[in-house]
Amino acid sequence: MTRAKKDIKKVVLAYSGGLDTSIILKWLETVYGAEVITFTADLGQGEELGPARDKALLLGVKPENIFIEDLREEFVRDYVFPMFRANAQYEGLYLLGTSIARPLIAKKQIEIARKMGADAVCHGATGKGNDQVRFELGYYALEPDITVIAPWREWDFISRTDLIAFAEAHQIPIAKDKRGEAPFSTDANLLHTSSEGKVLEDPAQETPDYVYSRTGNPEDAPDTAQYITIDFERGDAVAIDGVALSPASLLAKLNDLGRLHGIGRLDLVENRFVGMKSRGMYETPGGAILLIAHRGIESLTLDRGAAHLKDELMPRYAELIYNGFWFAPEREMLQAAIDHSQQHVTGRVRLKLYKGSVNLVGRESPWSLYDQDLVSFEEGGGYDQRDAEGFIRLNALRLRTLARRAARGEKK
Amino acid sequence: MTRAKKDIKKVVLAYSGGLDTSIILKWLETVYGAEVITFTADLGQGEELGPARDKALLLGVKPENIFIEDLREEFVRDYVFPMFRANAQYEGLYLLGTSIARPLIAKKQIEIARKMGADAVCHGATGKGNDQVRFELGYYALEPDITVIAPWREWDFISRTDLIAFAEAHQIPIAKDKRGEAPFSTDANLLHTSSEGKVLEDPAQETPDYVYSRTGNPEDAPDTAQYITIDFERGDAVAIDGVALSPASLLAKLNDLGRLHGIGRLDLVENRFVGMKSRGMYETPGGAILLIAHRGIESLTLDRGAAHLKDELMPRYAELIYNGFWFAPEREMLQAAIDHSQQHVTGRVRLKLYKGSVNLVGRESPWSLYDQDLVSFEEGGGYDQRDAEGFIRLNALRLRTLARRAARGEKK
Amino acid sequence: MTRAKKDIKKVVLAYSGGLDTSIILKWLETVYGAEVITFTADLGQGEELGPARDKALLLGVKPENIFIEDLREEFVRDYVFPMFRANAQYEGLYLLGTSIARPLIAKKQIEIARKMGADAVCHGATGKGNDQVRFELGYYALEPDITVIAPWREWDFISRTDLIAFAEAHQIPIAKDKRGEAPFSTDANLLHTSSEGKVLEDPAQETPDYVYSRTGNPEDAPDTAQYITIDFERGDAVAIDGVALSPASLLAKLNDLGRLHGIGRLDLVENRFVGMKSRGMYETPGGAILLIAHRGIESLTLDRGAAHLKDELMPRYAELIYNGFWFAPEREMLQAAIDHSQQHVTGRVRLKLYKGSVNLVGRESPWSLYDQDLVSFEEGGGYDQRDAEGFIRLNALRLRTLARRAARGEKK
Amino acid sequence: MTRAKKDIKKVVLAYSGGLDTSIILKWLETVYGAEVITFTADLGQGEELGPARDKALLLGVKPENIFIEDLREEFVRDYVFPMFRANAQYEGLYLLGTSIARPLIAKKQIEIARKMGADAVCHGATGKGNDQVRFELGYYALEPDITVIAPWREWDFISRTDLIAFAEAHQIPIAKDKRGEAPFSTDANLLHTSSEGKVLEDPAQETPDYVYSRTGNPEDAPDTAQYITIDFERGDAVAIDGVALSPASLLAKLNDLGRLHGIGRLDLVENRFVGMKSRGMYETPGGAILLIAHRGIESLTLDRGAAHLKDELMPRYAELIYNGFWFAPEREMLQAAIDHSQQHVTGRVRLKLYKGSVNLVGRESPWSLYDQDLVSFEEGGGYDQRDAEGFIRLNALRLRTLARRAARGEKK
Repeated sequence: MTRAKKDIKKVVLAYSGGLDTSIILKWLETVYGAEVITFTADLGQGEELGPARDKALLLGVKPENIFIEDLREEFVRDYVFPMFRANAQYEGLYLLGTSIARPLIAKKQIEIARKMGADAVCHGATGKGNDQVRFELGYYALEPDITVIAPWREWDFISRTDLIAFAEAHQIPIAKDKRGEAPFSTDANLLHTSSEGKVLEDPAQETPDYVYSRTGNPEDAPDTAQYITIDFERGDAVAIDGVALSPASLLAKLNDLGRLHGIGRLDLVENRFVGMKSRGMYETPGGAILLIAHRGIESLTLDRGAAHLKDELMPRYAELIYNGFWFAPEREMLQAAIDHSQQHVTGRVRLKLYKGSVNLVGRESPWSLYDQDLVSFEEGGGYDQRDAEGFIRLNALRLRTLARRAARGEKK
Repeated sequence: MTRAKKDIKKVVLAYSGGLDTSIILKWLETVYGAEVITFTADLGQGEELGPARDKALLLGVKPENIFIEDLREEFVRDYVFPMFRANAQYEGLYLLGTSIARPLIAKKQIEIARKMGADAVCHGATGKGNDQVRFELGYYALEPDITVIAPWREWDFISRTDLIAFAEAHQIPIAKDKRGEAPFSTDANLLHTSSEGKVLEDPAQETPDYVYSRTGNPEDAPDTAQYITIDFERGDAVAIDGVALSPASLLAKLNDLGRLHGIGRLDLVENRFVGMKSRGMYETPGGAILLIAHRGIESLTLDRGAAHLKDELMPRYAELIYNGFWFAPEREMLQAAIDHSQQHVTGRVRLKLYKGSVNLVGRESPWSLYDQDLVSFEEGGGYDQRDAEGFIRLNALRLRTLARRAARGEKK
Repeated sequence: MTRAKKDIKKVVLAYSGGLDTSIILKWLETVYGAEVITFTADLGQGEELGPARDKALLLGVKPENIFIEDLREEFVRDYVFPMFRANAQYEGLYLLGTSIARPLIAKKQIEIARKMGADAVCHGATGKGNDQVRFELGYYALEPDITVIAPWREWDFISRTDLIAFAEAHQIPIAKDKRGEAPFSTDANLLHTSSEGKVLEDPAQETPDYVYSRTGNPEDAPDTAQYITIDFERGDAVAIDGVALSPASLLAKLNDLGRLHGIGRLDLVENRFVGMKSRGMYETPGGAILLIAHRGIESLTLDRGAAHLKDELMPRYAELIYNGFWFAPEREMLQAAIDHSQQHVTGRVRLKLYKGSVNLVGRESPWSLYDQDLVSFEEGGGYDQRDAEGFIRLNALRLRTLARRAARGEKK
Repeated sequence: MTRAKKDIKKVVLAYSGGLDTSIILKWLETVYGAEVITFTADLGQGEELGPARDKALLLGVKPENIFIEDLREEFVRDYVFPMFRANAQYEGLYLLGTSIARPLIAKKQIEIARKMGADAVCHGATGKGNDQVRFELGYYALEPDITVIAPWREWDFISRTDLIAFAEAHQIPIAKDKRGEAPFSTDANLLHTSSEGKVLEDPAQETPDYVYSRTGNPEDAPDTAQYITIDFERGDAVAIDGVALSPASLLAKLNDLGRLHGIGRLDLVENRFVGMKSRGMYETPGGAILLIAHRGIESLTLDRGAAHLKDELMPRYAELIYNGFWFAPEREMLQAAIDHSQQHVTGRVRLKLYKGSVNLVGRESPWSLYDQDLVSFEEGGGYDQRDAEGFIRLNALRLRTLARRAARGEKK
């Protein structure tokens, strides 16, 4: 980018400890002459954070500039669960595992920037993807005058070789398998692992088995189905098989179950906010179970009017999260509506897990709206079958008027 | 119903040949003194229609008053396929197998009524369900001044015993297993089989195995996955594994595949249009495959704007069909929008069927909007990464303005 | 209605003191043998309530069974204002003046029924209109097992003459002008007066001048425009011309202004919930001003995302209120979303009133999101015009991909 | 913009003949060394096109490179009328007069570019507004690989003085009143005139009288109301006072009427697509009348289901047009739905024009769905009041179930 580089003093970098963000770290020092503060979050991606600290120290970051935080509970409680109250699926299928993590990371970077007096934030997302948008909309929504640095859009490296050369020149350790181009790239957190690029780029070709890391192959899953129960309170899962669990522990437990039974794989061609189609592979073992479970308890406890309104609002809500508008007023408005509906979404569902599929087989609730008397073939439950005639006739009235008009037209 | 019974001369009855509609046939003659015309449709419910003719003759219906029609192709081509273009699922899950059949039956009854000079139509749906609404809205929308007879809402029978007694009194043959109350009731056509009632009435209890009739148990399905391809043209499936098939033949073939692999079972608590919740079990083997397949070919060929609009309109569209408004102008308007989007939904998808699940593993199309150059990590395809900065900054502008306002507020 | 009449002991009647509800009062005693409790509300309809009390006493209602309540503040604060936060207009135009009053009356009747141990409630709405639905949905939503009596649907009177005869037989005083059929019927409250029927039934004919009662003819309005200001706090109007007013007083003041300037007349053909079209004339002098004013203050203080979401939700919200679903969960969900958006809808608007029209001529707010620097033709305000290029190019990306596909198609 | 300037041979410039686009013309020649083709459209902006030709010649444009076209009929028939079928209003109020003209100009520029072998197109919209987006989305949607030149985002002029100096240096004639900054800027076509900037930039201040050019002040309008009729066929206006008129002539006639009676002024703070709020003043004299008229004929001829669906889709449709997505598939899908509804929107409305306001006072149609018998207080028209009871009771069923649940909760 040829706009003049801004004068930056301190920058908070979303730092994973990997090669790419290590290169960014050194690039920020070199090109901007900025003091770098690293922020590394545990969102349940399944990696130790200790090495990230060591790496940062090795690269010369001052100890007081290294921030490492376990965000798993906050992530699930304040981001994943609210989103699952909405049964959100982008383009009908994607459970938004990457999208929902970005706002939280952005928020933490901004908090650290304020605390440390930093004037910039930086992320390692590329210039073609959605994540740059999600990070940056988050930054700007929380700190409108922060400077945002997106190295992948700015620097002059045009090949992997350039990057490796820079790394070598700056004494950045390079693992052997990182020298070449990776066959695919991944993002992971407690909700999901996504993979895209290279070997996945031909949407006609099946995803190779070695791409999957979070779920077993359904064909290798146990031959016997497993039944579990999930308890909900006000729309959020609170227990598995009767055992109360914190949000993050519960999702981790569902992930274990999903992994075992090969649940939650999704091979998707999706539409990015930046305008092109991409092909990704998602593994959301626990989320796939949670979605079915939540829909199940809602089916018993949610009124039709509320349920249908939720279904109509969901695509918009999911799109907002996908596009990075978590902190936008319209997302909050929709959340207010959704949360209002969850007051009685309390009870227990029973699920059957078997070789890649989750099936709801039972649901019960103290707040059930299901009335056996009402639905039974017998009379009773306060339902008078004669009411149906009037109901139908008035619903039909406008259609009959239309039909009479059509008949008038035919006569003409 | 105590409103005075209308004077009816001829009535077209939706006649299955079963005990219940046979009772209705005799009841119409007895109570209304009406001449009964029977209409029996082959919608792919999997029963021979010959016996229905024999039964009608046996019950004294004049041969010229017996109408039997094979509607399978019309059903799939003009009702099922248009609905699948919309990816319609009621309450997020139900593929509307019963709902979509009713308008066609209603339409045929009205056509016969006109042809035969009948002044009334009659169906065998109960007074608590959705089907009465769907039948009658169809009747009225097509023939606004027709008289509609709904025996279950009108007659004085209050128990199974009453019905059996009436049958015996009128020489209606009664199969042994029909004397008692059935443990559940079913509806079937080429798209699905639904079951509800009695043994299914406790939503906490798993559906017993013997209720399923259209799908094998996933646990008994082949241990080896099967791959198939489906070809689409303008939104409709036209071939399986490269073999062109008519709409009904194609759906029948998908049903066979689904049955084999235990695909398409759904245990659902749903909200009826008449106001109560009910619990049903659906088997939609071919439909479950078709939905995934159609979404798959759309993912490659549909523009984001079109795809998202479709997703937002879908719940309303599905609700209209569920509620019986197939012939309403707003359903037609939505159909016009949906159909407009399907012009390039042409191509081939590859699916993996395995023990109850369908997974899309590949898709290709001459009209693909997926552009490997555009999405690749390399530069190119006419995408300039620097554009992303402006894109993000203008999308962020209103959020930054909001953040500045919020900051003003904090200072106060 | 030929269903057996229920055994009723005490019934709470929505009683206006007029001839029709007086007839109902006596009819309830006569036909049901029920003790009648009258409820008369002051919703700002502009009539004294004393005569209603006298009339009830005259008709033999026990003093302790006569309930008269001034609901004006509650009506405006808890019903009218929340609705105006949504800018609700049914079918694009109607400000829902009658619809919004019914739930409150229903709620009060139910409260009195509980307090007095009544087992039924009764209203004077006819069997062809929307009001019966609004009253009864309100009753049932608050007291699901209450018995509802709707005399106009039940009794055997088939003409005005029958009613008058019954009134005479029961010593009900009859004003001279009530003997014949009224040329139109009206409903009034602090928000509006509606008129329909008879002289209005031909939608091709202009509403005669004598039908209007709440607004002057614009042609007779002052020749000089009047400027006013309205102050808002969190979405609700709180002051006119700088003078703080309670909700009801404020609306009354706006009504005076509107009346003077001939503002708020609406001649409408609308679609009733019960299925037919009707033609009505509405006068909503204060409401018409309030709508423009509220939109005006929102235009300055509401973010685009919030504003557009509100606009998309509004038709559904208005339909729910029109159809009588004020107490339904989906209305409450929408209200939660709408109310969430109003936090900063605070400030002052300036309006010009002149011969039937209201024009917004100025708006200001401490929470304004309007930024003169940003919008000015000069550079500045943190807006870099070069950002627009990237913004446009990424918004165009999918359209360009579509165009390339179309070009491929032409080549074929 | 510091991206390298592309090598351009021929460019089609949207040329008004005014000072600014004349400067652009010379700038294109100077900076790009490109051959300039001018395109000047008559969209009913009310200016002679002859001078534009003379000016282009004077500035050295080759005669064969000067394109002037009268697009008035195409504009109204294919752009304005389809949009009015939707009753489109952006943010509830704005009739989209500028937005709807841009796609047509873009389309014509692309057509000329193809014909003349030009490799670029150019417009004179600034970098802060919506018009740049509308032009460029149009260009890209029709010719994905065209080069777009947006001088206002590119050149180095930073003040009016710079521009004037450039004009003088290139012998561009400068009208005296163009030397300084204009107190506001305008855009005009057959549908509207918009004004914004400078004197309008404080949204608290009333628009000065001298800004208005298309409408008389309501206070100066005739003291006597004028009645007119408008005839519609399939959703489009075809005659005024019984006189058939072409689309453009009809709109021109309505503009005359609106101008006379001071109709169609709008002072608005709106949200631009590029992210900021702006304040504009719109005069849409004929459009304001047409909107009321179209809603009026729809009220009589459109079914409720269709009407309500249209109302719900409208905000999205209007937003798409405002944002420049006229050529996007989702706009076309919505148009397909809307157009489908207009089949019977045929008939005559009567309107009263008086001092700034338009009121619908009558409507009639051979396709009317209004049924006087149905709505009359008398029985008849096939409406049985007893039907209302069943209708209400089934609509209430879910609310009663909710109320019973709430009561269970209170007991706990």
